[in-house]
Amino acid sequence: MKFAIEKSILLENLNNVIRGISTKNVIPVLNGIKFELTDKGLTLLASDSELSVETFIESKLITNISQTGTLIINSKYILEIIRKMPSDIINFESDGNLKVKIFSDFNEYNLNCLDPNDYPNIKLISQKDPVIIKADLLKMVINQTSFAISNQELRPILTGINFKITGDIFECVATDSYRLSKKNVKLDDPVLNDINIVIAGRNIIELEKILVDDEIVTMNVFNNRVLFEYKNIKFQTTILAGSYPNTTNLIPTDFEIFVKLNRNDFADAVDRAALLTQGKEKNIIKMKIENKKMIINSYASEIGKTEETLAVDTDENSNIDISFSARYMLEALKTIKDDDILILLNNDVKPIIIKPLSDESLVELILPIKTY
Amino acid sequence: MKFAIEKSILLENLNNVIRGISTKNVIPVLNGIKFELTDKGLTLLASDSELSVETFIESKLITNISQTGTLIINSKYILEIIRKMPSDIINFESDGNLKVKIFSDFNEYNLNCLDPNDYPNIKLISQKDPVIIKADLLKMVINQTSFAISNQELRPILTGINFKITGDIFECVATDSYRLSKKNVKLDDPVLNDINIVIAGRNIIELEKILVDDEIVTMNVFNNRVLFEYKNIKFQTTILAGSYPNTTNLIPTDFEIFVKLNRNDFADAVDRAALLTQGKEKNIIKMKIENKKMIINSYASEIGKTEETLAVDTDENSNIDISFSARYMLEALKTIKDDDILILLNNDVKPIIIKPLSDESLVELILPIKTY
Repeated sequence: MKFAIEKSILLENLNNVIRGISTKNVIPVLNGIKFELTDKGLTLLASDSELSVETFIESKLITNISQTGTLIINSKYILEIIRKMPSDIINFESDGNLKVKIFSDFNEYNLNCLDPNDYPNIKLISQKDPVIIKADLLKMVINQTSFAISNQELRPILTGINFKITGDIFECVATDSYRLSKKNVKLDDPVLNDINIVIAGRNIIELEKILVDDEIVTMNVFNNRVLFEYKNIKFQTTILAGSYPNTTNLIPTDFEIFVKLNRNDFADAVDRAALLTQGKEKNIIKMKIENKKMIINSYASEIGKTEETLAVDTDENSNIDISFSARYMLEALKTIKDDDILILLNNDVKPIIIKPLSDESLVELILPIKTY
Repeated sequence: MKFAIEKSILLENLNNVIRGISTKNVIPVLNGIKFELTDKGLTLLASDSELSVETFIESKLITNISQTGTLIINSKYILEIIRKMPSDIINFESDGNLKVKIFSDFNEYNLNCLDPNDYPNIKLISQKDPVIIKADLLKMVINQTSFAISNQELRPILTGINFKITGDIFECVATDSYRLSKKNVKLDDPVLNDINIVIAGRNIIELEKILVDDEIVTMNVFNNRVLFEYKNIKFQTTILAGSYPNTTNLIPTDFEIFVKLNRNDFADAVDRAALLTQGKEKNIIKMKIENKKMIINSYASEIGKTEETLAVDTDENSNIDISFSARYMLEALKTIKDDDILILLNNDVKPIIIKPLSDESLVELILPIKTY
C-alpha cells in the first residue's frame, strides 16, 4: 500500500470511524482501524463487533495512489499522530510486512500493524427502500431522549433507545424507569413497513456526534441490526433483543395542576437549590406550589438549607408539595429549547410532566420521590 | 453580623482567599473562611496553618453594614453559592447562633457555621523594610521555575522553591534532582539584608495565580515564615526548614556543543517523538546531532518507532547521541518565550542546558538518561 492524502480529509474521516472502536473490546485485531485502498478510493473501518463505522474516501480526494492494499493500523495513537503531523500532505507506505510508514518530509512514524487476515469480514450493505430522515431531525431526536436511558445492565432493554415508526410518525422513547423522555417527529416520507426497534443507547450517542451537516440519513432496518448511511459514512449497530416496555400508559393524560413558567428561571432555581445536595445520589429537592407561587427548597443536615421563590402562572387553587431529583429535572429541562414550559401535575405520587409550552412533540416525565 | 455587598466584589475576594483552604486539612474549623466585619470593612481569611490568605474589603466598597461581627462559613459551597446567586447585591445576616442567611429577593441559603472561638489566632503582620518586587516580575519568576520542584516527600527541601536575594539580584531555583530551572532578575531596590529561603512549591503556585495586575508586591521575610502583600491581599506561608542544596556547581560553564534552533520547531518534534512513549513514566526519546542535522527518535517495542529530522545551526564537528525525558524537555521549553533557543551540550552523560538565545537570565537543565 502506498498513497498520499490531505491531512484534513484523513483526520475528518478518522474522527468519525474511530467511534467504532470500543475501550471494552477484547479482540486484539478490533483495536485496529482497517485501511483498505483500491483504485476507487480508501475505505476506513472500525468495529467492536456490536458497532461498526465505515467511511469511504473517493480516489479523487486522495492526492496520490501508487499501490493498493489493506492494512490494520492500531487505533491507539493514529488520531494524535495524524493531528500532530507538521505537513498538509501525509504519506502512507507499507510493503506488506505488517508495518506501515506514515511520513512527511521531515518526520516519520513506523508503526507495527495488525494482521488483516485476522480481521472479521464485516459487510455494511444497504437496503432497497430505507427510511429517510433529515440528519438535523435525527440528531435532535437522539439528543432530546438518549440522556434518559438506563446505565444499569439489570434490565438490558432499558439501556437502549426505542425507535418506533408508524407511517410517517417517528416516535423515540428512552427511560430508566425513574424518568422518561419521548419525542415525536413527522417524516417527509411514510415508511412502507412499520418499525419498532431498540438500539443500544451508547451506540446511538456516537451516531448523534457524527451528524453535523444538514444532509439526509437513510436507515436500513434488518432482523438484528440497523445500518445508517450519512454522507460517506456507514454506521451499523446491533438491535437489542427483547421488546421495549409499553410506555404509553405511564404518561398521564389528565392533570389537576398546570404550571406555566420560564424555563431558565426554573432551571436556575433548581440548580441553586440542588447545590447543597450535591454528592448525594438522588439530590432530592422539594417543590411547593401555593398562592401562585413556587417555592423550591432543599435541606442537607450538616450544611444547611436553601429556599427559592418563583412567581408562576397557575390556577389559584393549585396546591402541591412534591419532591424529585434535581439532576433528573435539570437534564429534562436541558432538552427544551423554548423559553416557556408547562409543568403538569396531579399529586405528590403521580409522575411530573414537563413540556415546552407550545410544542406537543416532546414529553419529559419524572417520577416524584416520597420523602416521608 | 448584617451586611450587603456587590456580588462581583465578594466573588473576586473569595476566589483569592479560598486558595488558603487545603483539601488535606484535618482541623475542622480550617475548612471555613473567616468573615470578620468591622466598621472599617470586611476581612476574609482562610488558612491551612501552613498557608494563610487574607483579603480586606474596605467599608466604602460594601453596600451596607448594619451590624458587625465574625462568622466562620464553610468553604465547600460558598464560592458556588455566591457565583450562582441571581442578584447583583448579596445580603448576609446572622444573629450569632452559628448560622448565616445569605439571600437576595427571591432566594436564600441558610448555612450552618463553624465556631469563631475555635478559629486559631492568625495575625499577618508586615515588616518595616520589606523587599519590593513588581508583581509581573514575581509571577514570571515563579512561572518559569516552579514546575521543576519535586513532588517526592523523600527530600522535603526539594518540594520547595529557593528564593535568594543578594543586593539587587533575585535568583530563583527549583529542582527535583533530575532537572533544574533557574531564573535571575534584577530588583529596582537592593535589599538591606541578603535573603536565602525555601518556600513550599505548592503554596508559591497559589501566589502566582493571585498575581494578575501590574502592581507592587512586598515580601516580608521572618524566621520561619514569609508574608507577601499585594493590593488588598496578604499571603503568608511557612519557610521550609533545612538548607537548599548548592546548585551552582551543577550547571556546567564550558560546553563542547552549541546548537541554535527554533523553539517551536524543536518542541513540536519532541512532542511528536514523545507520542509513542506516552504512558511510560520517563518517556525517553533520543536526540542525535550529526552533520548540522538533529535527529530525534523514539521506540516503543509493541507500537513502533518514530523519527524527526531538523536542520540546526551548529558546528560541523558537533556530534552527539543523547537520551532524555521528553516530558522534562517540553516543560523546560514551555518556560521560554523567545523564538530561538540555544542547547548546550558536552557529552551523553553531562547535563543538557537549554536557554533563550538572547537572554542570560533563564537556565533550564535536564540530566540525560543512559539507555544502554
